[in-house]
Amino acid sequence: MVKYIISHKNPDTDTICSSIVYSNYLNSENIEAVPIKLGNLNNETKFILEKFGFEIPITKLSLDENSEVILVDHNEETQSIDDLEKLKIVGIIDHHKFKLKTSEPLMIRAEVLGSTCSILSKIFFENGYDLSKNEASILIAAILSDTLFFRSPTTTNDDKLIVDRLNKVAKIPDLENFSLEMFEAKSDLGDISTEDLIKLDYKVFDFNGKKFGISVMETTNPNYGLSRKDEIIAKLKEIKKRENLDGILFSIVDILNEVNSTLFSDDFEKEVLFKVFKVKGEDNFVDLGNRVSRKKQLVPFLEKYFE
Amino acid sequence: MVKYIISHKNPDTDTICSSIVYSNYLNSENIEAVPIKLGNLNNETKFILEKFGFEIPITKLSLDENSEVILVDHNEETQSIDDLEKLKIVGIIDHHKFKLKTSEPLMIRAEVLGSTCSILSKIFFENGYDLSKNEASILIAAILSDTLFFRSPTTTNDDKLIVDRLNKVAKIPDLENFSLEMFEAKSDLGDISTEDLIKLDYKVFDFNGKKFGISVMETTNPNYGLSRKDEIIAKLKEIKKRENLDGILFSIVDILNEVNSTLFSDDFEKEVLFKVFKVKGEDNFVDLGNRVSRKKQLVPFLEKYFE
Repeated sequence: MVKYIISHKNPDTDTICSSIVYSNYLNSENIEAVPIKLGNLNNETKFILEKFGFEIPITKLSLDENSEVILVDHNEETQSIDDLEKLKIVGIIDHHKFKLKTSEPLMIRAEVLGSTCSILSKIFFENGYDLSKNEASILIAAILSDTLFFRSPTTTNDDKLIVDRLNKVAKIPDLENFSLEMFEAKSDLGDISTEDLIKLDYKVFDFNGKKFGISVMETTNPNYGLSRKDEIIAKLKEIKKRENLDGILFSIVDILNEVNSTLFSDDFEKEVLFKVFKVKGEDNFVDLGNRVSRKKQLVPFLEKYFE
Repeated sequence: MVKYIISHKNPDTDTICSSIVYSNYLNSENIEAVPIKLGNLNNETKFILEKFGFEIPITKLSLDENSEVILVDHNEETQSIDDLEKLKIVGIIDHHKFKLKTSEPLMIRAEVLGSTCSILSKIFFENGYDLSKNEASILIAAILSDTLFFRSPTTTNDDKLIVDRLNKVAKIPDLENFSLEMFEAKSDLGDISTEDLIKLDYKVFDFNGKKFGISVMETTNPNYGLSRKDEIIAKLKEIKKRENLDGILFSIVDILNEVNSTLFSDDFEKEVLFKVFKVKGEDNFVDLGNRVSRKKQLVPFLEKYFE
């Protein structure tokens, strides 16, 4: 039975590269596997797949009942394909916190590493999988992307060792320069609509009943986001109303200088941010300092606040 | 910070041996770890630990807030140490279905194998851990115990290959004979009270709001259980009332002949069992044929019935 390797609703480099290389690996073990994406790719991920000659995974927004799926880089129903409860989750490879209920035993490989592609690389090393140069290259790209070239506080020493080992195969001459190329591709947003800009890396969290949308724009060019500040705030207000959210944030993360400037919709978020992070700021805008990781530096503190 | 390796509330050979050998492994990696049990051991597990010279883990029914714990052979709160939500789950190694919510990323290693000690053995092989003869022996004991010497439908080919590899170190001359010794130790229940007999391998499940207690007595001597039939049924009725259960079952599993005779408390369970498993039987007793695995042959079907 074919296994669908499902990337998450916010298709970034880590989840997409995971779905592709893990499918290749399973195919090499004579297990039929197909990578699936749930939305459009950002320019960084497009750049990487094109550079190393990989096809863009097909989009499928639903699957036949009882199809077998493996989730990569996520485990929560809200971040996955629709009607997940009617499918059979046979595996999960992820580095996030867990919220999961299954009716059968399954394979799970979760580690506290900087990216899902780091976990996958360990699996490949353990099983002696013969990575091609291009596969090793996109695994490196995903690790550098998710750890912001090892700058994010989610980075571990293992992530660095894994990149070293992968690069014996990938032979990328200058990793820092390569990561800059990647981040510049990501920062090239052209004439993207305000809604799409917000939804590019957007996740909705449930903090003890409070629904919070948090968008992160990782960029080498924060002024681009700041120059569109007014329209972004207007759109945040609109999305908040339309999606019945309690709060919505848009964090502009300067990847190179590791600074987070966060826009929000109204006084509710303002009060929360001021209290939680002990910061001050103007209307609809706050400087969150070096809090560049949504997963490690924003979500756990907001979650605790609403407990 | 010390890590507590938590075995589950129904301390069987797989969970106890997992907690002991995994603690040894972490200690060898300079990580302080202590195995914890939550109740009294059965005679099989006592036999194994004594035979191979391991100390019985200490019992701890609670831990200080924010203590770091690794759960072995379980992942659900109801099967774990009290007040788990106030502790920090940093890892899980398990082969059951999942029901889990964490506030931080963590290590999880789950595989669809016959025992948790099979998963641990893979981890040890991957990391080149130098298993002692006695460690390899109790890992084998746990795999043979959980798979009923490879008879349970939960057995996989990997479990057999792992036992072969472990036995290169353990050098147990006759594995079948060894498993018989183990199962006879398990079947030796002496003058155990009826309540303790039921609670020896007892788990409570939530089937869509219906609370079901399922006790399994794996034995080479099913007549012992059948001879105490009347007192067991009386005690099932008492426990059901006291613990506010919707249903309660006591399965006498003949390990050698792979047959399951199940006692229950009243007409509610009778109707459920007759419908779900298409069987007939007398009052308070039903022959469930070769359904020897609670995890694979009872729970999923009951769960589906109540959906």
